[in-house]
Amino acid sequence: MTFETHSKAAGVGRLVAEDDGWRFVLLVTVMFLFVGLAKAGVEQSLPPNAELVAPGIWLVHFGNPETFTPLHFRSAPVAQEALQEMPPVVNPPFNLRGIHFRATSRGCVLELPLVTKEDIYGFGLNTSLFEMTKTDGRKTGRRIFLAPSDSPENDRGETHAPVPFYVSSRGYGVFIDTARFVSFYTGNIETREAGGSAPSVQSANTQQELYRVRELKTGEMLADIPAAKGVEVYVFAGPQMLDAVKRYNLFSGGGGVPPLASLGVQFRGCGKFGAEQSLALARQLRTDRIPCDVWGVEPGWQTHAYSCSFAWNKELFPNPENFISQMHALGYQLNFWQHAFVHPSSPMYEALKPWSGNYLVWSGLVPDFATCEGRRIFLKQNEEVLFSKGVDSVKLDECDYQPSSATPWSFPLASEFPSGLDGEQMHSLFGVLYQQTLLEPFRNRNLRTWGLVRNSHALAAPLPYLLYSDSYSHRNYVRGLVTAGFTGLLWTPEVRDAGSVEELCRRVETAVFSPMTLINCWEMKNPPWFQVDLAKNNGDEPMPGGEQATASIRQLLELRMSLVPYLYSAFNEYRLYGTPPIRAMILDWPNDPKVREIDDQYVFGPSILVAPMFLGQKMRQVYLPEGEWYDFWTHEKLTGRQTVQVTNSPEQIPLFVKSGNLLPLARPVENIQTNTCFDVEIHAYGVTPTDFILYEDDGVSNDFLKGKQNRLRLHFSAKTHAVEKTGDYLGPTRYRIVDWRDN
Amino acid sequence: MTFETHSKAAGVGRLVAEDDGWRFVLLVTVMFLFVGLAKAGVEQSLPPNAELVAPGIWLVHFGNPETFTPLHFRSAPVAQEALQEMPPVVNPPFNLRGIHFRATSRGCVLELPLVTKEDIYGFGLNTSLFEMTKTDGRKTGRRIFLAPSDSPENDRGETHAPVPFYVSSRGYGVFIDTARFVSFYTGNIETREAGGSAPSVQSANTQQELYRVRELKTGEMLADIPAAKGVEVYVFAGPQMLDAVKRYNLFSGGGGVPPLASLGVQFRGCGKFGAEQSLALARQLRTDRIPCDVWGVEPGWQTHAYSCSFAWNKELFPNPENFISQMHALGYQLNFWQHAFVHPSSPMYEALKPWSGNYLVWSGLVPDFATCEGRRIFLKQNEEVLFSKGVDSVKLDECDYQPSSATPWSFPLASEFPSGLDGEQMHSLFGVLYQQTLLEPFRNRNLRTWGLVRNSHALAAPLPYLLYSDSYSHRNYVRGLVTAGFTGLLWTPEVRDAGSVEELCRRVETAVFSPMTLINCWEMKNPPWFQVDLAKNNGDEPMPGGEQATASIRQLLELRMSLVPYLYSAFNEYRLYGTPPIRAMILDWPNDPKVREIDDQYVFGPSILVAPMFLGQKMRQVYLPEGEWYDFWTHEKLTGRQTVQVTNSPEQIPLFVKSGNLLPLARPVENIQTNTCFDVEIHAYGVTPTDFILYEDDGVSNDFLKGKQNRLRLHFSAKTHAVEKTGDYLGPTRYRIVDWRDN
Repeated sequence: MTFETHSKAAGVGRLVAEDDGWRFVLLVTVMFLFVGLAKAGVEQSLPPNAELVAPGIWLVHFGNPETFTPLHFRSAPVAQEALQEMPPVVNPPFNLRGIHFRATSRGCVLELPLVTKEDIYGFGLNTSLFEMTKTDGRKTGRRIFLAPSDSPENDRGETHAPVPFYVSSRGYGVFIDTARFVSFYTGNIETREAGGSAPSVQSANTQQELYRVRELKTGEMLADIPAAKGVEVYVFAGPQMLDAVKRYNLFSGGGGVPPLASLGVQFRGCGKFGAEQSLALARQLRTDRIPCDVWGVEPGWQTHAYSCSFAWNKELFPNPENFISQMHALGYQLNFWQHAFVHPSSPMYEALKPWSGNYLVWSGLVPDFATCEGRRIFLKQNEEVLFSKGVDSVKLDECDYQPSSATPWSFPLASEFPSGLDGEQMHSLFGVLYQQTLLEPFRNRNLRTWGLVRNSHALAAPLPYLLYSDSYSHRNYVRGLVTAGFTGLLWTPEVRDAGSVEELCRRVETAVFSPMTLINCWEMKNPPWFQVDLAKNNGDEPMPGGEQATASIRQLLELRMSLVPYLYSAFNEYRLYGTPPIRAMILDWPNDPKVREIDDQYVFGPSILVAPMFLGQKMRQVYLPEGEWYDFWTHEKLTGRQTVQVTNSPEQIPLFVKSGNLLPLARPVENIQTNTCFDVEIHAYGVTPTDFILYEDDGVSNDFLKGKQNRLRLHFSAKTHAVEKTGDYLGPTRYRIVDWRDN
Repeated sequence: MTFETHSKAAGVGRLVAEDDGWRFVLLVTVMFLFVGLAKAGVEQSLPPNAELVAPGIWLVHFGNPETFTPLHFRSAPVAQEALQEMPPVVNPPFNLRGIHFRATSRGCVLELPLVTKEDIYGFGLNTSLFEMTKTDGRKTGRRIFLAPSDSPENDRGETHAPVPFYVSSRGYGVFIDTARFVSFYTGNIETREAGGSAPSVQSANTQQELYRVRELKTGEMLADIPAAKGVEVYVFAGPQMLDAVKRYNLFSGGGGVPPLASLGVQFRGCGKFGAEQSLALARQLRTDRIPCDVWGVEPGWQTHAYSCSFAWNKELFPNPENFISQMHALGYQLNFWQHAFVHPSSPMYEALKPWSGNYLVWSGLVPDFATCEGRRIFLKQNEEVLFSKGVDSVKLDECDYQPSSATPWSFPLASEFPSGLDGEQMHSLFGVLYQQTLLEPFRNRNLRTWGLVRNSHALAAPLPYLLYSDSYSHRNYVRGLVTAGFTGLLWTPEVRDAGSVEELCRRVETAVFSPMTLINCWEMKNPPWFQVDLAKNNGDEPMPGGEQATASIRQLLELRMSLVPYLYSAFNEYRLYGTPPIRAMILDWPNDPKVREIDDQYVFGPSILVAPMFLGQKMRQVYLPEGEWYDFWTHEKLTGRQTVQVTNSPEQIPLFVKSGNLLPLARPVENIQTNTCFDVEIHAYGVTPTDFILYEDDGVSNDFLKGKQNRLRLHFSAKTHAVEKTGDYLGPTRYRIVDWRDN
């Protein structure tokens, strides 16, 4: 087979040239730290296979690891400086000798410590699961099968972004650097050596009794890793869960920062629309004063969608350049849909053939994005049709897998790729490699981008893409928001059709309080506020009360626009400190047992607690943790450590601001241009609020990474308020503070 | 870990000592055949890795196969003589060079030929799937994941008995000798090398169009085998599908023959019953003249059920010997429930510990039945509590797995066993090894047995066990009957509770026309004909019309008893010729395209076509293939190659006898004793019926294998009828022909 010869010639490209650089930095850091630690604290002796690789991060080596792992293809260097600014930690969070390894005929196995009262979170994006040791509320452990899936609505751990990283309520994290489909057993495994003694077990004579007994004792954490004969394990210290998550995100390279305009609203037009219809609808949104910054162009732009031609459909888009420039003139950034499987009619087909997998998907080639040649050929065609024409971002569809389907449509695990990756490794890494590949044209232009992708994996925090899904459970969408933050992922609860205006409002509210506010009309001719029902919408039948609905949605989207400066700070701090912009309650209140199970409310940015309501709910309960709180809408002050009942109307999502914070709220604009300056009101909650930092830069380029960014430190007290500005950004002013308000 | 040391010392026991013997027989046979074939026909040249191993059976070697495979643990030697009596075949059924192999990082892959019009059947017991290349009636291929499962109601191939053997409508079979969880792709894989050229693909622009295009061309058959670095493939010639199935069954050793009484009715009593209640109900059945031969004793007999103690519950069964002898005196054979996981309270726990897996199930040890010591210790305890006391058979529960469950309860795939098997191999083989182990006490006593088991695998035809399930879809139960016959398995559609008397009758009818007529009341205090509703039954509340229901069920069970001689012939011919006693229509009419999809009617024994009806059906359609047919109930003569509509009442399952056959029907007895002699009427269908052979032996021992069996050849023509008796069986007469009837 010819590709084997090619693979050796080509080698496997790493997308980050600094990769070897950071290893040297690490070495120096480690040496310094050892000297420091010997003086500072009582250092535990590490097992011989363990080493400290960054502050609070230990690497433990086992066996003979595989070459093709998430770390091999990392997206960014370790954020060493930020890690060094974290609280110092002397010892590993648990005895590293407690990790047991064995190679087996099937691959290898890790046994990791786990105690009965320990709660486990993470393992990637999960829309159906939250705390990972429980089933139906019983702490009997479960199996998490980390396989990439296009059907995330399952209880098995199969998801758009399976990540072999988990974080424990005991304040540590563990990352297993593998691209294999690992099965984790979270305490539902009992070893022979540990058995036979527990007297409580003696009384179990039915399955029900057994379950009860099982809750009294917990087995180990077992990781069953196929094919690999060794593995590297990274252990992240706390002291708290959030610290472990931050360390993991900084180890990944820190969070990605969006172009400022991408924090506005994205509207995806109908997949059947050509240039003319798209422009008409885009103009209509402006007429209707619907805030919108990004326009998504769906499959219709390609002559072949399944698989992709990467060529313009000349009937629908006779003049692509003209279309793009007209949309830009209307103030829209442009995002273009695609998937990776290359149709025989595509101009790149023959060139790509030797740099693709040995099985097809939908009769299309599967590019080997782990080879330089595969990437180059794929990008050349994309450059010609998309990037040279000024496209601002992409939506990378269909790049996940179907591990449990009887009719999987993607390439089989038995696939072979010129790079040497097999189908299983490629499925784990496909989304990440695809994201990295399509990031290159923007990096080359010194531009940021903010794309969509349906598959991701470990160490993905620096990648400027958000996960989305064909699934559509609103309740599970919220859980996805909450869980994505454990493992460096971003998730968008996109809005499509709805059963009622109430449902539409509730869904839009969640989209407003998410990393991306996305209205996806790829199946619909008109916006959902014209008609929520899919069939009637496509029949151009307006719904009764559509004008009121439009006004409600406009108001909600304007709320989003007012939050852009606040959110931009959260994303900059995701990059700088690894703090997830959207987080589970447990991360901010690790010592409050009441939040351990809460997956229907979450923290949005530094200080806002969001408690979404769902269709049909007239009332919901919200748990407010320790501290004092302010109802965002009524300004009512509430005491924490209590559950309150709220009855917010369909236009007012329950929001609570934590006392002791400043909240910047901008006057909403309809879209964000390069010279947009936000008029910002600063709202103070509580008597001595913490300073808030606004980040000011050009909003579009990567110059901010080289210091071309100002920090506006907002200070407020009973006596005074002040703005302290530092930084080297000299472009147009981004924020004008128009008012300071004490709530 | 201590067990590693043990594993080397112990070695791995093979349960059949003749194993090496048959290899020598094979060698001689092969040499003879080569000489014969060189003269007889034009022999194709075989690839260097292929060899003829038995008449019409080729072995193809690939790579470096694993040690622990189904063939390594085969249950019986190859039935060489029977294979030699099959129609001679010169060449393999397809070019063996068309099988491609490659070892991968994950295991190995086989690519096998498949053509567009080819239909594929097999892959073990399947209650949800029938023809294996179709999805929703479209021939687009599917993935069959051959993992043992306790939840067979899925479309993925996970089943109580996954078997890596398939049979093709082109008249051949393929067996891949592996204990790995193989994924078969039945045509839904397209290779890169084959792609890019088909012009029809060019027009597919939506997923719907793609599916349509896919039906026009078929990919290969791909088998993705994890962990193994090589594999042996056996190819079975036809010329027809049934011949390939027969060759596979004879290669397995031929079908198992039940004790005669096991063809009667089995009743399983309530799991909570002790000796007293069991005896009371057993006497009641006799009073009510309900035919019953086997009494099943459920978990209550053990002090611990989850996991098992293998010790009598002295409260429920103060005197086990007395209970067993009283039940025997009432004419019941006794079957005892158990599963394999050994509770710490069991007397064998400490001895078994070093001969068990390194993980527990329900806190119980998992015996390594692949070691002589593991078997010996397990059998010693079973001997003491069961076999020395005269137990006649066992029900081996919970020996399957949960490949797709979030909360698997059985041992993990990462398990290690002293024999050297890993958890995956052990899960594939666990049911077969467990069956083999608990067969030994009966073989040692020269007794047949007929047990129940919830997991089986390849080459299982000789094992005297039937598969059952917790699943309860009547429609799927029928599909299970149909599919089990493709791969040497037997399946019982047991009857539990019902929603109505109509449903009860319909379910009992299917049980009558199955390998085992089983009424399973383990959750119910009273028989279902007393009360079909579970809750009311356990409240001792009789249902209205119970007497009529009892009469109907009695009549149906008497029909079963009248079929025992007919069925006993079918089972003897399963052993002698490999013909499945219950078969899909496609096996008997391979050239009739109309039967390719029929999985709701089947062939029962040599000549009866069964078309079960389901709850609520007032009418059903039955397809009668080529030939002439007789309605069993009305004696109406019907012409084949047509679909007829039937409206049989709930007491009369639609049955059709094929013209040209003799059907022996016995006068029903209530139970079968060692000296039972059946009064048999011979019914002739058509003018020149084929002779029918009745098999006469002691019905209980294995002496029939050594010739202690008579064959009664029944001959009938318009002018005369005759019985020709041959054989060395000298015991009590088994059959008295009381009448010959021309229909």
